[in-house]
Amino acid sequence: MVEDNEDLSFIPDLPTGGPLAVYRKRANFDWKRLRLIFEKKQGLRIKYKVWHRLESDPLFAHPATTLPMDEQKRLCAMQVNRMKQLDLVPKEIENLSFSAKTKYLMYINEALASYSPSLSVKIALGVGLFNNAIRAMGTEKHTKYIEAAWNREVITCLAITELSHGSNTKSIRTTATYDPATQEFVINTPDFEAAKCWVGNLGKTATVAMTFANLYTADGQNHGLHGFLIPIRDPKTLQSYPGVLVGDIGEKCGLNGIDNGFVVFSNYRIPRDNLLNRTSDVTPEGVYESMFTEPAKVLGAALESFSAGRIGIMQESANTLCSAAVIAVRYAAVRKQFGPERQGDEMAIIEYQLHQYRIFPYLAAACVHKIAVEELTNTYLEIIARSQADSNGFDVLTQNVSEIHALVSASKPRITWAARDAIQEAREACGGHGYLQAAKLGQMRSDHDPLCTYEGDNNVLGQQASNWLLRQWRAKELESPIGTVKFLENREELLQLNYAQALQRYGLASWEFALHCYEWLLCHLMSRTSAHIERDLASGMHRFEARNNSQVAGARELSLAYAEYFALSRYAAHVRHLQVEESYGQVLRLLYDVYAMRLLEQHMTTFYVGGFGVGDAFANALQQRLLQSCAQLKDVAVSVADAIAPPDFALNSVIARADGLLYENLQKEFMTNEGAFQRPKWWRDVIIPQAKSKL
Amino acid sequence: MVEDNEDLSFIPDLPTGGPLAVYRKRANFDWKRLRLIFEKKQGLRIKYKVWHRLESDPLFAHPATTLPMDEQKRLCAMQVNRMKQLDLVPKEIENLSFSAKTKYLMYINEALASYSPSLSVKIALGVGLFNNAIRAMGTEKHTKYIEAAWNREVITCLAITELSHGSNTKSIRTTATYDPATQEFVINTPDFEAAKCWVGNLGKTATVAMTFANLYTADGQNHGLHGFLIPIRDPKTLQSYPGVLVGDIGEKCGLNGIDNGFVVFSNYRIPRDNLLNRTSDVTPEGVYESMFTEPAKVLGAALESFSAGRIGIMQESANTLCSAAVIAVRYAAVRKQFGPERQGDEMAIIEYQLHQYRIFPYLAAACVHKIAVEELTNTYLEIIARSQADSNGFDVLTQNVSEIHALVSASKPRITWAARDAIQEAREACGGHGYLQAAKLGQMRSDHDPLCTYEGDNNVLGQQASNWLLRQWRAKELESPIGTVKFLENREELLQLNYAQALQRYGLASWEFALHCYEWLLCHLMSRTSAHIERDLASGMHRFEARNNSQVAGARELSLAYAEYFALSRYAAHVRHLQVEESYGQVLRLLYDVYAMRLLEQHMTTFYVGGFGVGDAFANALQQRLLQSCAQLKDVAVSVADAIAPPDFALNSVIARADGLLYENLQKEFMTNEGAFQRPKWWRDVIIPQAKSKL
Repeated sequence: MVEDNEDLSFIPDLPTGGPLAVYRKRANFDWKRLRLIFEKKQGLRIKYKVWHRLESDPLFAHPATTLPMDEQKRLCAMQVNRMKQLDLVPKEIENLSFSAKTKYLMYINEALASYSPSLSVKIALGVGLFNNAIRAMGTEKHTKYIEAAWNREVITCLAITELSHGSNTKSIRTTATYDPATQEFVINTPDFEAAKCWVGNLGKTATVAMTFANLYTADGQNHGLHGFLIPIRDPKTLQSYPGVLVGDIGEKCGLNGIDNGFVVFSNYRIPRDNLLNRTSDVTPEGVYESMFTEPAKVLGAALESFSAGRIGIMQESANTLCSAAVIAVRYAAVRKQFGPERQGDEMAIIEYQLHQYRIFPYLAAACVHKIAVEELTNTYLEIIARSQADSNGFDVLTQNVSEIHALVSASKPRITWAARDAIQEAREACGGHGYLQAAKLGQMRSDHDPLCTYEGDNNVLGQQASNWLLRQWRAKELESPIGTVKFLENREELLQLNYAQALQRYGLASWEFALHCYEWLLCHLMSRTSAHIERDLASGMHRFEARNNSQVAGARELSLAYAEYFALSRYAAHVRHLQVEESYGQVLRLLYDVYAMRLLEQHMTTFYVGGFGVGDAFANALQQRLLQSCAQLKDVAVSVADAIAPPDFALNSVIARADGLLYENLQKEFMTNEGAFQRPKWWRDVIIPQAKSKL
Repeated sequence: MVEDNEDLSFIPDLPTGGPLAVYRKRANFDWKRLRLIFEKKQGLRIKYKVWHRLESDPLFAHPATTLPMDEQKRLCAMQVNRMKQLDLVPKEIENLSFSAKTKYLMYINEALASYSPSLSVKIALGVGLFNNAIRAMGTEKHTKYIEAAWNREVITCLAITELSHGSNTKSIRTTATYDPATQEFVINTPDFEAAKCWVGNLGKTATVAMTFANLYTADGQNHGLHGFLIPIRDPKTLQSYPGVLVGDIGEKCGLNGIDNGFVVFSNYRIPRDNLLNRTSDVTPEGVYESMFTEPAKVLGAALESFSAGRIGIMQESANTLCSAAVIAVRYAAVRKQFGPERQGDEMAIIEYQLHQYRIFPYLAAACVHKIAVEELTNTYLEIIARSQADSNGFDVLTQNVSEIHALVSASKPRITWAARDAIQEAREACGGHGYLQAAKLGQMRSDHDPLCTYEGDNNVLGQQASNWLLRQWRAKELESPIGTVKFLENREELLQLNYAQALQRYGLASWEFALHCYEWLLCHLMSRTSAHIERDLASGMHRFEARNNSQVAGARELSLAYAEYFALSRYAAHVRHLQVEESYGQVLRLLYDVYAMRLLEQHMTTFYVGGFGVGDAFANALQQRLLQSCAQLKDVAVSVADAIAPPDFALNSVIARADGLLYENLQKEFMTNEGAFQRPKWWRDVIIPQAKSKL
């Protein structure tokens, strides 16, 4: 908790005066102290340090316009190399606990991502994810790669996806056949459909690829997918090796600082030691052996590497939500258009109810998810830490791994889609000026977009979450050690709940009201979806098809609702435990109400069709509370935005600088953009020679 | 109607064989004949001619990657100039009727827009919209500008928006003060907030700007906004004139082929004749005079110039919807992922119910809107034509102008948003490959995005439509000459309708069912919104605020529902009048069902809250019909897509070529993209010198 006398000077002050001052003066709280409710002080200190160092180094100055692709790649690669000199990661963190160290790195990643997603992804691929994979699948002999990746002696990448297989990794077709004669694996790409592709870092720079391939022994037996370290390019020259046809896949919609590549292997030989052999190995003579030693570590490492990437995406998406909301709110507070009297003053567009309804739910979502993602991260790290400390570590993990996986699989789609929608609404809410590249929203949209697809396609992940939920519904005994579906113990009672009772029992003004609505919703969706599947199975349908056919009928909504319930309940629990002055409590509650009401509104059909709501009372009450909360939030929205805004350097939006000088900043942008006043070099090409200039 | 023996050879055949053949064989109709149901033969012929000419000219070859901004502008400007040589507009069209001529130009615009939105917008700004404005506001002495714009002797633009005023044009602040001494107007920009900005063509090339400014006479009186023709640059040199500070606003999220500019005028003098003086003039001595001669022509020209731009946007958006749906459908039919058996065959993703539910409603929307927009265009042109032919032309116009305006104001948001959502869903439904720039979806998203804002912000337009609808609701006598709200005559009866009755009366399988649901919905929303406003007014609220506060409560949904009702009812009426074989009737009906059910689903909350639906019957019946219709559509979806697809040259998506050779085309793209296999020139910059290459 923030103490009154705490030193908040590490958070830079905001400019005083300017058009935003009108609203800033209305806040009855200190935005810096609110900021420390949304983010841990330690994390914020790290982030400001990162932002400050980047801002001080000309290599990280934002280009005035989108650079040519090749130049984007060069700049990004050089920025990655500069990391070491920036000294962002102190040596001492090696002495920290696993959790503390991981969080430290996560904070750095967040700060880098809010500056440039290409940069943070390139580092993650080249260091974090690669090293996680080595730790998960490799043994002692592979640790030298971890050090080498840190030191940039090798440039790494993860080659899993093939041209015709993304989500369904089990159907990967690259082969690695062991040759006892030379004690090597022979790597082959059977045809171009099995070419590894979309591999980040591979296009131009990677020197080694952690590659998934089917391991064949000399007897022709396929032992399934294994990880291999495959040299791609000579680290001294960046020339590719014979037998490796490697190239860059070309321009993408965004993230063009990353060199995504493809590779085809033709009888390419690698040493036997390059098999990542933690769980299985091939003897020099060519005998395949499985080893199940240290299963807890294996499982833990697997959990770590799968979930860590998705949690990183959630953290980045929460920040993207913040940025989009900040841009929309600051612009709306300064931009004026129309007013009650034709000749009179115009109104700031933030004053319009419809505008509030369009943008405030995203401001609220940003705040709720900031806290909820931090909570999820902590839960995840605690489990890993507990399993490492506990002599029954393996049991701890197996108990928790499914629930964590379900939670992450539901939450990653929810938050990446929320950010996607926030960016688009912000763009439209900022009108034409929002369409300027310098407003940043276009680039944000393009860079955020792939997060809905990579590290697990949102729709596929959602199904995994609903599968787990439906298993819980059918199970005789709940397996919810984290407690995310503990409410299922009261399922009978919950299914009987309706709006009138919920209102009577908790009242609209309680924190519990929305949560209990969600508990009914989740039970109802599980019950309905489960029945749907059972009906299909009973009619002889294959389980695969029955599951597919339950997605629209309920499973899809179920996993989204589960993620929302988790976020709202963790936010509520966290905030209610804070010892804060009333003014902080009020705004935190207002944000909860705006987001919760808007979310419930999106499930309204299910509430009505399922009989929870009857007549217009429920829907009207929610809408009224939502609109009233928006109206109350309006006066403090600018200060809430200040409390979640990255500094101007990272936000980098000409229409949302902290000084609020919208038109002055646009003027500067217009007047100074490259070649603004220059007659085009090609002017002769567009003049029609016969022009008589009579006009 | 398409005759059996009709010559359809002007529509190029599709490649035979390939992975799409599986589905193409399942269609029980000829896609070319279906195509002629969605688009008039005359229009299609024109479009294929345009596409063919563009494809044959190397200047229109698609660049392999996004060009640098300046290069995009150069190319686009040169393409505009090449238009004349391409001879797309035959001289004879001057002899056609107004409607026929307009449609001819609209078809050309559509074909150009589907090739390159920058190009079509640049032409529209430079020729079409400029000339419309001259016709609407100018007199005889200004017609030379129309000819000059056609001949590219002048490069034109429309300067209306100012830095701080977009939607609220009434607050524009640029001044034009008449100086009788020299018989000139002195143009001034009071401060940078009043700088004209976002003006397309102004940034680099325009030589004359049609500019809105407040006309002041020497006595200091402000006579309000008037149009002026203001020379900007010397057409022989493209150098700007003294007193004109003109520049380019810089990079945008898309449409970078267009040079959007800003301009500041400082005591810049233009001849008196440059006032567009159709409705008012200033005498040489400086006396302001209003003239209301030929009011029908003035109103007609105004209607034409306001609505024509928005109708153009709707046509382009319908085509964008088509393109997005085509990409998603073709990809889904070829891409396989997972299957019922772990080791067995994989399934094409089009076979998954959830995938159908995600993309088919957009395919259906594309087909419905293609026809509905054509209907709307015809209605609009008929009214103009009737007013020109009728001796009571003015009455014809005044009767129709409000309804047309409401219809266009409701429909432009509906269809631009539908296209926006279709593009995003298609991108996600095509997974990572959809994120390739060569897949086209990213560029489509960036280029389409501003259509939600320009020519009337969607949210502002929506309010204008709902205002008209609410006036009809309150009016003692309906003023709906076009008949779009004729159903209001039965409002009492309609408000009593509910699902059970609708089902009994019409049956789910009827065309009428969805339309009657909509009629209830519209009446309900009008009644509710109207009551909301009345309540607020009664409590003393200003009408401006009462209207604003009714947006979320109903007005916003109302105008969208109105546009949907119009589209569905016109589609139904059109299709039911066709004399077609059953196989065509079936697929046209299927498309109607998919779109109508999906749309109704989106209003489900209102249906339940308003008491139209009770229990789960309505929602379940709709969902079941939607999913069944999707399942039926699945086998013919590829052929439907063929019937609305632009040729490969215009669609230009590597993942959706007509040959269906997804992976071969991707392979070619990967292998041939510029510098794919080249070691980067900057390779030395990213090598860490101390690399020991021990790995």
